[in-house]
Parts: sequence; C-alpha cells; structure tokens
Amino acid sequence: MKNKKRTHQYKKKIGLSPGSIVYTGEKESQNLFIESFDYNQDVIEEKVHVKIEDTFQYKLTKNVTWTNINGLNHVDSIEKIGNHYNIHPLTLEDIVNTSQRPKVEDYDNYMFVVLKMLYYDKDEQVITEQVSFIMGDNYVLSFQEAEGDVFDTVRDRIRLSKGRIRGLGADYLLYALIDAVIDHYYIVVETMGNKIEDLEDNLFNGFSQEEISQEIQNLKREVLKVRRAIFPLREIISKIEKNENELIKDKTLHYFRDIYDHVIQLSENIDIYREMIWSLMDMYMTALSNKMNEVMKVLTVIATIFIPLTFFTGVYGMNFDHIPELHYKYAYFILWGIMIVLFLAMLFYFKKKKWF
Amino acid sequence: MKNKKRTHQYKKKIGLSPGSIVYTGEKESQNLFIESFDYNQDVIEEKVHVKIEDTFQYKLTKNVTWTNINGLNHVDSIEKIGNHYNIHPLTLEDIVNTSQRPKVEDYDNYMFVVLKMLYYDKDEQVITEQVSFIMGDNYVLSFQEAEGDVFDTVRDRIRLSKGRIRGLGADYLLYALIDAVIDHYYIVVETMGNKIEDLEDNLFNGFSQEEISQEIQNLKREVLKVRRAIFPLREIISKIEKNENELIKDKTLHYFRDIYDHVIQLSENIDIYREMIWSLMDMYMTALSNKMNEVMKVLTVIATIFIPLTFFTGVYGMNFDHIPELHYKYAYFILWGIMIVLFLAMLFYFKKKKWF
Amino acid sequence: MKNKKRTHQYKKKIGLSPGSIVYTGEKESQNLFIESFDYNQDVIEEKVHVKIEDTFQYKLTKNVTWTNINGLNHVDSIEKIGNHYNIHPLTLEDIVNTSQRPKVEDYDNYMFVVLKMLYYDKDEQVITEQVSFIMGDNYVLSFQEAEGDVFDTVRDRIRLSKGRIRGLGADYLLYALIDAVIDHYYIVVETMGNKIEDLEDNLFNGFSQEEISQEIQNLKREVLKVRRAIFPLREIISKIEKNENELIKDKTLHYFRDIYDHVIQLSENIDIYREMIWSLMDMYMTALSNKMNEVMKVLTVIATIFIPLTFFTGVYGMNFDHIPELHYKYAYFILWGIMIVLFLAMLFYFKKKKWF
Amino acid sequence: MKNKKRTHQYKKKIGLSPGSIVYTGEKESQNLFIESFDYNQDVIEEKVHVKIEDTFQYKLTKNVTWTNINGLNHVDSIEKIGNHYNIHPLTLEDIVNTSQRPKVEDYDNYMFVVLKMLYYDKDEQVITEQVSFIMGDNYVLSFQEAEGDVFDTVRDRIRLSKGRIRGLGADYLLYALIDAVIDHYYIVVETMGNKIEDLEDNLFNGFSQEEISQEIQNLKREVLKVRRAIFPLREIISKIEKNENELIKDKTLHYFRDIYDHVIQLSENIDIYREMIWSLMDMYMTALSNKMNEVMKVLTVIATIFIPLTFFTGVYGMNFDHIPELHYKYAYFILWGIMIVLFLAMLFYFKKKKWF
Amino acid sequence: MKNKKRTHQYKKKIGLSPGSIVYTGEKESQNLFIESFDYNQDVIEEKVHVKIEDTFQYKLTKNVTWTNINGLNHVDSIEKIGNHYNIHPLTLEDIVNTSQRPKVEDYDNYMFVVLKMLYYDKDEQVITEQVSFIMGDNYVLSFQEAEGDVFDTVRDRIRLSKGRIRGLGADYLLYALIDAVIDHYYIVVETMGNKIEDLEDNLFNGFSQEEISQEIQNLKREVLKVRRAIFPLREIISKIEKNENELIKDKTLHYFRDIYDHVIQLSENIDIYREMIWSLMDMYMTALSNKMNEVMKVLTVIATIFIPLTFFTGVYGMNFDHIPELHYKYAYFILWGIMIVLFLAMLFYFKKKKWF
Repeated sequence: MKNKKRTHQYKKKIGLSPGSIVYTGEKESQNLFIESFDYNQDVIEEKVHVKIEDTFQYKLTKNVTWTNINGLNHVDSIEKIGNHYNIHPLTLEDIVNTSQRPKVEDYDNYMFVVLKMLYYDKDEQVITEQVSFIMGDNYVLSFQEAEGDVFDTVRDRIRLSKGRIRGLGADYLLYALIDAVIDHYYIVVETMGNKIEDLEDNLFNGFSQEEISQEIQNLKREVLKVRRAIFPLREIISKIEKNENELIKDKTLHYFRDIYDHVIQLSENIDIYREMIWSLMDMYMTALSNKMNEVMKVLTVIATIFIPLTFFTGVYGMNFDHIPELHYKYAYFILWGIMIVLFLAMLFYFKKKKWF
Repeated sequence: MKNKKRTHQYKKKIGLSPGSIVYTGEKESQNLFIESFDYNQDVIEEKVHVKIEDTFQYKLTKNVTWTNINGLNHVDSIEKIGNHYNIHPLTLEDIVNTSQRPKVEDYDNYMFVVLKMLYYDKDEQVITEQVSFIMGDNYVLSFQEAEGDVFDTVRDRIRLSKGRIRGLGADYLLYALIDAVIDHYYIVVETMGNKIEDLEDNLFNGFSQEEISQEIQNLKREVLKVRRAIFPLREIISKIEKNENELIKDKTLHYFRDIYDHVIQLSENIDIYREMIWSLMDMYMTALSNKMNEVMKVLTVIATIFIPLTFFTGVYGMNFDHIPELHYKYAYFILWGIMIVLFLAMLFYFKKKKWF
Repeated sequence: MKNKKRTHQYKKKIGLSPGSIVYTGEKESQNLFIESFDYNQDVIEEKVHVKIEDTFQYKLTKNVTWTNINGLNHVDSIEKIGNHYNIHPLTLEDIVNTSQRPKVEDYDNYMFVVLKMLYYDKDEQVITEQVSFIMGDNYVLSFQEAEGDVFDTVRDRIRLSKGRIRGLGADYLLYALIDAVIDHYYIVVETMGNKIEDLEDNLFNGFSQEEISQEIQNLKREVLKVRRAIFPLREIISKIEKNENELIKDKTLHYFRDIYDHVIQLSENIDIYREMIWSLMDMYMTALSNKMNEVMKVLTVIATIFIPLTFFTGVYGMNFDHIPELHYKYAYFILWGIMIVLFLAMLFYFKKKKWF
Repeated sequence: MKNKKRTHQYKKKIGLSPGSIVYTGEKESQNLFIESFDYNQDVIEEKVHVKIEDTFQYKLTKNVTWTNINGLNHVDSIEKIGNHYNIHPLTLEDIVNTSQRPKVEDYDNYMFVVLKMLYYDKDEQVITEQVSFIMGDNYVLSFQEAEGDVFDTVRDRIRLSKGRIRGLGADYLLYALIDAVIDHYYIVVETMGNKIEDLEDNLFNGFSQEEISQEIQNLKREVLKVRRAIFPLREIISKIEKNENELIKDKTLHYFRDIYDHVIQLSENIDIYREMIWSLMDMYMTALSNKMNEVMKVLTVIATIFIPLTFFTGVYGMNFDHIPELHYKYAYFILWGIMIVLFLAMLFYFKKKKWF
Repeated sequence: MKNKKRTHQYKKKIGLSPGSIVYTGEKESQNLFIESFDYNQDVIEEKVHVKIEDTFQYKLTKNVTWTNINGLNHVDSIEKIGNHYNIHPLTLEDIVNTSQRPKVEDYDNYMFVVLKMLYYDKDEQVITEQVSFIMGDNYVLSFQEAEGDVFDTVRDRIRLSKGRIRGLGADYLLYALIDAVIDHYYIVVETMGNKIEDLEDNLFNGFSQEEISQEIQNLKREVLKVRRAIFPLREIISKIEKNENELIKDKTLHYFRDIYDHVIQLSENIDIYREMIWSLMDMYMTALSNKMNEVMKVLTVIATIFIPLTFFTGVYGMNFDHIPELHYKYAYFILWGIMIVLFLAMLFYFKKKKWF
C-alpha cells in the first residue's frame, strides 16, 4: 500500500525533462479551490475565486496579498500563476512534485519554501501533505494538495486584525503561515508520545507479541516520517534568518527565531521518542527472557521433584523374586514417609533459591 | 500523568497569535511574591512588594537592582513590568510559557536568559521549573514559577556584602544567579548517581524483574530530562561569552568561563550515567541468561540421571512370563549396584563439566 | 564470486606506475561503440562512429558536442581521445580503472566527473557500472563500460529539441546526463524498498531462518553498495556548485541544486532502509525468542501435568505386600477422580497464567 | 564508597561564593612539602622549604625557578603564594578544588594548566590526583595533592643538566613536567590493556559469571575515568600550541606537538580498549548462549532416547489379563532387541545432527 | 605475546629525556643495509653501502638522491645521518620509536612522514612495520625496520626510467614511495575481506563456537590495527597537499590527490568490513538461538507425545484389586488403539505447527 504510493511517485518523474510540471501526489480528483486575502492595516478584501486569473489583479495593489491555492492536480492553473508571477520552472515542478524534502530556496524576486504538513488520519496513520509558499515583495502564494483547516487561525487573525498581522508585511504573513503548520506538529508529536506511553503500559499484558512487534515497528516508521518532515526545518529557518535578499525584514527576524526554538524543541522530543521506542524493544526482550525463565523454573521444579520420586516407585514396582523390602509390613508407609520428606526438602530448596 | 501535563501545555499554545502572554505551567494558584534588592558597594535596600508597580522606582537609581518575581500565573504583572522595562512581547511570552528550552537571546536593551531549575520532589521525581532572567544596564529581573530557596546564597552574599558581589555590576549579579541555579544541578546529578549505584548493587538480588525494568526506564527518563536542562547551557554560556552588546564586562567573563567548566563537567557526568544505565541493562540481561542457564542445568542433571534409571526399573517391572533375571536371587541387589554406579558416574561427569 | 572480482581489480593495479591506463573491469570482450551528437539551437548532427578519430572534427565546431564512448576495454582509443583533448594521464587512468569512488576533479581545461550507475541484473543483484564524464568548453565526453539505455531520455531530448537542452551549453548537457544517471537510482532504491517490505511481510512465515538471515545479509550488502555510489554525490554536487573555473554557468547552477535535493532525498531513503533492515533483524530475534517461549510452554504444560500423575500410577504399581489402598473396592475410581481433579486444576492454573 | 567521595566534593562547594579557596580532596592530613629549583645553564640551587614565604626570593632572579608545592589542604600557603605571584582568585579556587576537569587558561601574566595524574593503587584501582601548573615569565609553580615520584625524572634532568632542560626557559620546564605526567598514563593504559587481555583469556573458564560481569563493569568504569583524564588533553595541547601571549616560545612548540602525538595515541588506545570491553561482553553472551545450547542438547538426547523406551517397558508392565506378547517365550529378549536397535538408531541420528 | 611487545615499547621510552634516540621495535639483531640511488633524467648511480658516511657525498649533487636505510636498531648511524642532514632530534627519536602513529611534520628544511607498512606474516597475522621518510630539497631518506621488497617497483621504475619518475624531483619520488606502501594495503585489505567471507560461509557449519568467537575477535583486532594504520593517512595527505614550504611542487599535487582517493577507498572498505564483522556476530547469535529452538522442539515433541502415553501404561500397571478394564478381553488392544490415535493426533498437531 504505502509502497505502491512510492512507486507511483517515482514512475511519473523518471525520464521526464527537468522542469516538467507533473503532479505526483495521490489526490488527483481534488477540486481546485482558490481564495485570496488582500489587506492592509485598514481595509481587507477576502474572496473565493473560480479561475486563477481572477487573482492576478491583486498583484498590482500595494496591499499585502495572500493567495491560497488548493488542489495541486490542476497543473494548468499552477502554470498560469507561474507565468504571471514570473516563477522559475524548477519551482513550479517542486510545487506539484509532492515527494519534495522540506527546503527553502532564494530566487531573485521571491523566496520559495516547501514544508510538510502532518496529521493523523482516521486510521491513526501519520499523513504528510506538501505545503509550499512563494513569498514576493508584497504577496504570499500558498499551495496545498487539498483544502484544510490548518490556516484557520491565520485567516481569523487577518479578518479580526488580531495580533500584529495586519500591520506588518508579507514576511510576517509567511511567518504566520509557517507557524500555523508547525503548531500542528505539536499535536502529532504529542499523539505519538501518548501512543508510546500507551504501549509502554501495555507491554507486559494486554497485547500479544505480534501486536507489540507490529506496533513498535509502526511507531518507528512514524517517528522516521515525522523526523523527515521536521529535521530539515532547522536548516530552513536558519537559512531564512541569514537570508540576504531583504525579503525578510529585521523586525520579523525575531519571530523566525521563535519558530527555530519550536523546531529545536520538536526535534528533541522526536529524538527522545526514538530512544524510548528502542528502549521499549529492549524492555520487551527482557520481559520475554524473564517469562521464559519463569516457565523453565516451573518445569524444572515439577520435573526435579517428581522424576526421582517416580524412580522410587519404579524400583518397588519391579518383579524380582527377591526384593526383601516388599515384605516388610510398614515398608509402604516408610517409603511414603521418605518420599514426602524428599518432596518437602526439595520444595524448601527451591523456595530458598527463590524459584517460586 | 506526565503525559497530561504535556498535553496541557501544548493545548494552551496552539492557535494563539504569537506573542500572546499565557502561562502554560501547572502552578496556577501560586501567590505573587515580589522582592527587590537595590544596592551598591555602600548601601543596600531590600524590600518585599505587594504590587509590581512599587518596584519601578528602582529603575531610576544608579545602583544595581535585582527584582525577583515569583508566580508566573500573574500574567498582568508580567505585562506591566514588560511595558515598564520595554521588553519585547516574544520575551514576555517566553517567560510565562514554561515549556521553553534553555536559551539566551540578545535584544537591543537587554539580555534574556531562560534556564531550567532541577530538583527532586518528595516522590523522588525530578522536577523541572523554569527560571528566566532579564539583564539590563543596571538591573536584573528574575522570574520563577514559585518561591524557592535556590537564590538564598545570593541573597546572603548581597546582604552581608560577602565576596565581590556588591562591588560589581548587574552582569556579575546575573552570573551569581545562574551559578546558584547550576550549583543545584550538582545535587540532582549526584542523587541520580546514587540511584544508579543503588540499582547496580541490587541488580542481582532484592528487586524483582519488573521493578528493575521500571527503575531502569525511570532512570533513563530522568537522565533525558536533566540532559535537556543542562546540555543547552554549553551553547548559552558560550553565546554569553561572545556577546557583543557590552552588557557583560570583560572582568566578569572569567566567571562565566568558570560556569562553562561546571556545565561541561555536569554534561560529562550525565553522559557517563547514561552509559552506566545502558550498561546496567546489559548486565541484567546477562544475569537473566545466566540464571536460566543455571535452571536448565538443574533440570538436565536431575532428568539425565533419573530418566535412564527409571527405564531400568521399568524393564524389571514388566510382566513377561520369561524374564530370567527376575529369578536370580541377588538380581535386585545387583541392579541396585548398577544403578548406584551409574548415578555416581553421571554425578561425576556433571561435576567435571562444572554443572553444579 | 564477488570476491574474485575484487581480487582481480586490485591485482591488475598493484605495482604499476601511476598513470598507467589499464582497464580493471570485467567486460573485457565488449565491443567499442562510439556515437556523437553535435548540436546547437537550430541544427543537429547525430552519428555512430567506428574509429575514435572520426569524432575529433567536432572539437573545432562552435556547437556543443557530446561524444559517448562505450567499451572501456578499448584502452588505445581512450588514449587517443586523451591526447586529442589534452587530458591528464591520471584522468585517463581513472576512466578505465572501474574501482573508482564517485568524484569530481577540476583541471585547467576540463572538469572530470566519475559516477556509478546502478541497476538490478536478472538475478536480482545490484550491479554497479562506472560512468565518467569529461566536460570542456563546448563538449562533453562520456565513458561507459558497456552500451546501455540510461541516456535514452537525453538522446530523445536532444533529437526532439524537447525541454531547454538544445539552447543551453555543455554544462547543461552534463547536468542532463548526470540527472539521467541519478534518475536510475530511484528505481534501484525503490526496488530495494520493496524487497525490504516483502521480507518484513514474510518474516513470521513463509521463509526459513537461513533464508531470512541470508536475505537480511544480502540487503545489508546492497544498501552498503548503493550508499557508496550515492553518498559521495553530495560532496560532488556541492563541489560542482562551488566550482570556480567558470565551466558551469550561473544559469545552470539552479539545476545542479535540484540534483543536490534528489541526492539528499536518496541518501535519506537509504539511511531509512538501513535502519529498517537492522530493525528487521531485531524483530526476527524477538520472534525467535517468542517462538521458543511458546515451545517451552507446551513442554512445561504437558510435563507438569503428567509427571505428577504418572508418579501416582507408579505408587500403586508397587508390589509391596501391604498397601491397604489396593484392596479398597473403589480405590481405583477414587484415584481416577483425584487425578482428573488434579489435571483440571493444573489446566485451569496454566489457563489463568495465559500459557495456552 | 566512591560515591561518598563524590558527595563530599560537591557538598563543600555548593553555596559558597565563587572564588572561595576550599580544598575538596580527600588527603586532608597531608603534610605541606615545598621544594624549589632555581637554575640556569650554569648554576642550580635546589632547596626544601618549611614556609612558603622562603620561596618568594626566587621570583626576583633571572633564572628559571620551579616551585613544587605538595599538600593542597594547606590552603593558607596557597593563598599566600597567590598573592605574591598575583594569581586570580578563580585560579586559586581551581587549584584546591580537586574535582576540576583538565584544562588550560590564559591569564595576562601567567598560563594555568590543570591535569589529572593517574596511577593504580595497591587495590588495583585507578586513582586520579589533581596536578596544576602555573607558568609565568621565568617560573613554574606546580601543585600536587600529595608527594609523589612522578617528577623524579625531571628533577634528575635538572640536577644532572641532562638533555636540554637547563638551557631552555620556563616553557620547556612546563613541557617537561606535563610530559612526565603523560608518561605515567602509558603505564596505566598498558595495565588496563593487560587486565582486558587477562579477562579475555579467562572468559571461558576460571571465572564465575558474577565475577566476569563485575570485572567488565569495573573495566568500563576505569576506561571512563582514564578517558576523562586524557581526552581533554587534546584540546589543551592545541590551545597551548595556539597560545598568543608569547609565554610559549616557538622553539618549544615542537615539543608540545610531540606531546600532542602521545595524547592522540593514548586516546586511540583507550577507544580500542573501550571497544574491546564491549566486544568481551558480546563474546560472553555468546558463550552463555552456547553453553545453554549444549546443556539443552544433553537433556534432549537423554530424554528423547529414554522416554520412548520407558513407554515400552510401561506397556509390558500393565496388568491386563490378555496381553498375548507376555506369554511368548522370547518376547522379553525380542523387546530388548527392539529397544537396543531404537537406542542405537537415535544415537546415530543425534550423532549425525552433531548434537554430541 | 602481543601484550609483551607493547609493554616492551613503553618501558624503553618512559622516563627518558625527550629527543633520546632509542630503538623500541623488536628487530634488534637486524643487519644494517644502506642503498642509494642518485639519478637525473640521463644518468643513474645505484650503490649499496657499508657505512652511512659513504652516502653523504650525494647530498652535494644536483641530482635527486634516494637513500634507503634498513635496520633501525643501528641508532648510531641514524644519529650520524641526522647530523649530516641537520635533522631535529625529535624527528630522529620518532624514526627509531616504532610505536609512532602515522603523521607528517613540516620542518624548515625538510618534510617528515611516518607510515605503517602492513603485511600478513606466515601465521596469517597482520604485521605492522614502521617506515619513515625525510624529504629535503633534492633528496629522500627512507627508514625501514628491516629489508623488504615493498619498494621494488620504485627501484625498477628508477632503473628502467619507466614512467615519469626520473624526470621529476624528490617530491615525486616521495609520492612514488608512499604510493608503493599504500599499494600493499590493498593486498592486506583484500585478504581480510576474503577471511571475512570465508568465515561467513563457514558460520553455519564447519567451525565450532569457540573457533568462530575467536576468529571474529581476531578479525575485529585486525580491522582495528589496519584502521589505525590507514585512517591517519587521510589527514596526512591533505596536510601534504596544503603544504606551504614549497617542497611539494604543484605538478606533483595531482598525484597526491590520487593517493588521497586510494586512502578514502581503503577507509571505506575497512568500515564496510567492520560492519560486516559485527553483522556476522549477529548472524551467529541468531543461528545459535535458532539451533536452540530446534533442539527444544525435538525435546518437546518427544516428551509431549510419550509422557501422556506412559501415564496410561502406568494406570494399567497399578495393582488395585478392582480395575474392571483389566479383565475385558480386548482391553489391551483397545488401549493400543487409543494410544496410536493419540500418537498420530499429536504428530499431526506438531506437523501443522511446523515443529518438524
């Protein structure tokens, strides 16, 4: 399943001329959804558009314009917007090629940022979705594979002029959008932490070995997936901080430094989870060894007590003509006595050895 | 439990506009406690205040002023102090957001330091509490979640003019406060070392497997927690040393270098404990394997000795009409002889193989 | 087998004067195949040549010329081309010495790039083949051990003037050729991923232990092989990007940055596969331990139930003259009753302990 | 024990004003021993002093003066010397605080070096002792916790004017003293190597599991201890080499480079020992598993051979009225025959499987 | 053995004044062998000398002179040559102290290179031997512990004027000699690879556990030894490449870069072997676990089948007066029937569980 998806992505790409704009994700029947926010401190115009061309007018205004395009399968619209905003073909290719690593690239007239959005779907699987941003002088274009609610807080802040978003430029808007994506990581990382602690609690009972092995393997994969989305961000944010083409103003840099702190914190949490998962594996192995030890002790106690006793009964079950003991009147009871003493002695011995 | 706490912190933060000042810790019903020390070489004024506004007068003096604010839940007071001292909103947010990583940040007019205080609570759990410092030209503001005694040594040194603290500036005061926090780390790291050595002593007896697994897991978590508090300090101190906005005077740099040495030493100890814990796990696994080996040997010795002997008794317990041995007069005794010889031979064999 | 190949390569090399041009690969009876593309925006001349000398004329044209030489065993032709293009003897040695590591080297008049091509042969073995490129002012020479179809997409793009290849210089051609090689890595990496997931699915059934051990070992080796081909590329591409002798034009740099992203992505995938393989090993060990546990439980349940019962039958099989129980009329049935109760009690006990 | 020592050190330090000069080692009743060497190419004056003040005269001479102070518990003398030579309080604190990490610090008028001396005590325990050096323009002060013979070779070389020591300055003297300390490391590292190889030889016989576990754990700790003493030296020596305040003359730098080589070599040896110890652990685990395997085989062979045979004897020990075989004349002998054949067949089978 | 050697080396060194020239190797009764090659493009004079003084004349010629001295135990000759060529005492000490790490050192008038030569002796042990080179303006001195054939290819190339050696200077000669040493590493690394693959093939049969443990341990040590010889070379070659005192001419730099590539390749191979050895250990442990599993299954199958059957025979071997079944005519045969059915049922059950 997961595998087929991967195959799919690669197949489409290989053998094409670089710069070919081909959507490689899975959401191929997604509707196109375009919305735009054009605002400054005082006024705001929010609209949903049917055609991409309708958004082009905002480029001319001096206001900050955020154009949010959902549905990367509509490659033609992406191309149109690319032409209008003068975007390099490689950037357009990267927007629709959803197997990109998170990265930031500086071009002459814009900055290009690719991120991964993370969420748990209803099957408790971590899903990654690609989000890209193009930030120019006074506009931000954002591209998502499908409509989502991740930017709702940003929308609200623009609408209500909450916080300082309306008073600041496109760079602050970019920051706010990236921050919204990263805020979602906390939810995923936290859910993952809960899963690990659940598993830890159920390690010694409740789950079968195969379930535990499977779950540990799943968690390892999820951690790897989340790591791949989050770790490149450290480099990205420091690249943005060091950026030289003055698209990011000094005033906004403090905010990116704040994101950097979040990313470091998330990275550390992920590394801790990673270590905890490996540790779980060890604990499980120890628990297994211990259980086996316990099983072996039961076997050994029983066998060690009864095998010698059975030997004695065997001795007096023999049919030799001359076994003098057989004819003593109390022999049977004496033997019982001996066997009971032996039995208790061995019980005592094993008790002392703490075998049960 | 631990988990819920984490959830709590994240929930509060996600979706808020950056720079929102919301306390995310657990001590929500903490009283506000404000004290100030205003001193120079010759005079000292120590006061406890009810309202934050009462401390604002000290900003005007040329003396060094240390204002210590306990109770981060009193967000409004934090905001007031922020306005008065002209603190960036992100800094205020970081002060009350107790899930910060230790860090240092340079602003134009002040230096901002976030540390974690560590102590063992009465359940022998490592507790981390956030302490932040803002150092300006001639003042230090310190923020704690709750009142504590960690700064008592600093208070005494100011009061008694012990050491060189009264003669030096705000930078030396900052150093003294950070040093007091780091001094406490030694106690935690030492306690942790004792716990590890205790566990090591009790590895082979005294504890059940589940207790040991649990304790090892706990220790791993504690080490991770302490690591997260201490490791970023290396970077922080070197950042302070390299600081360029001249808040730290050359004379004080030697003292920060001294802290750096302490931090390196603590880091090394933590790494050694980490390694010792992993090593414990290995020792425990080996001990388990060894015990199993011992159990198996007992079983094997007993079974190997008695199973063949029981076979012989079985042979002469058969009811064939013609078993000539049965009628020889000394057959029974001869068989006993043979069985005893076999028994001793096998004992000897196992003895030689060092199986018991 | 693999081993002999390695021996072979080393033997040929050791003891020779450096700069000796000796083919060290295995394809010694390969035919020489030479083709050339001489093109600019408007015209294109494609030819297959019999003698290497026939291609020398193109050096004089102002067009971009790509000369592709297959068959590294034809050392004399390599030497001739070396003389004609003024190639350093060490470069020629590296072209035919197929045990090179991927690398890039700057010479005064050309840039030399060695890559490894990867593909799965029909035995599902990863094969590496050496491909080298020499890029001069307006020409690219490419050297392959044997004819292959890896450059077909490039050929097509030149012929059909698809993409921007015809309008750009030799540096873009070099990029396109390297990109074609790297595109093939995706297929190999993906196949490897499929193999790992297949193995994971068959870990608990379907394969014998020896097959699994063997397969895991094979996969580890393949990952190492692919790693060795891909990892040096990161360094190579950044060296090309930083190149100073102006053979690579600024316009083309964006494309090499794109390759860099691909290489990073491939590297990360390989590292993930590596980790997954080690993880598989662990899972397999756990599964083994678990199976053993299960086996031991069966043995223990059976032995623990029947050994004591057999002891009782032994008791009443003894031939003492005076065993009062033997003569009670219902003794036999009472014993059966006791034994059945014991049997059920033990079953219940083991059930409760979840042993079966 | 070890633990208590550590506690001790920390306790003394915590809560004191920085720069407080308090001895934190264990040798509290050590006598003060002061000796001085004042020499140049031609003359030499060697003296043992009772009071520290007696050595102060040598500071005025143009000769090189080496003052060696043993007994760090005599804090007052350390303070006096500190005042006389104008030493920073933090340096004095570091000299008597024996829990320092090895380090070098540049001050305006002197260079301060802290090293750890290593030796095995009579219980075969690695002991670390702190040695510090202060090197000024034409003097070296050395501080030891207790009298020792580590500097005997240096003393001899000064007395006999052997080597080039008398002709060179204080920097060469410092080199010679550090070199003497490092020479001692070789003995410790070598002894450690011998212990590891001894353990390796005795892994499979001679030692009980608990002894081996204990010994491996001890060796790990010793390696960690020695590592902590030696690893910082790499950084120290390169700092000395790069030193800028011209206390180290160019001529002497070659000698420090020589020390650097020694330190690298020691570090490599320690890393190898570390790896060997981990490897020992693995070997031991394998040996354990193997032994268990062997034990299980013995049990299995015996049980598998005799349990079926015993079953047959059981069959003919039954008391059914009608068991025809019982009455055939040779039945007993035939059964013996069958049982012997079975026995041999199983022996052969196990032999073929190489189980014994 | 190995150990004693190490002891030996250290003992000789400790306590001596630095710069003391003492041979620390094992080949103490080696004869002195001195040969010299004095050549330029046109003429060549090759001679074997008895006394070191006889070679001093060549220093005056403008030709390149290679003086090869075998027998480091002849310390007096080393000292004489040191005086004549004006070599630093530390260099002379390093030449005869055979426990040096590979390194390169720049002196004013010469460059000093220490390498390790590696070969397998007749006991299949890796032997390291120290080779040092001193390269001055127009001479190279090489020092070996004993006569060997490693430089034969260089001798031949000088004699026959093969390659470009005669036309180039002392720097190219140094390169050729180092290259000859490194060429030999390939043989050692390849032999090691063969040994690892042999072991891999024999892991599951052919070798006893102790042999395998021993062999794995040996291979680990060999890899460590070879690593120590080869890894420092990376640093050495890049130091030579960056060398500033113009002893290495630009023209020769390409050749050293070629060596660098070889060293990287060797290092990678060694790391791969290292990983393969650890992997072998894992495979062996898995194989062991698997075998134990198999053994346990045999035991469990046999015991589980026969223990219950034996119980039944026990039941009817009892001597109760009233056991009704005993008197039914076909009881015996019915019991056989039941037992055979049970037997087959259990066989079928275990077959289904794939236990045999």
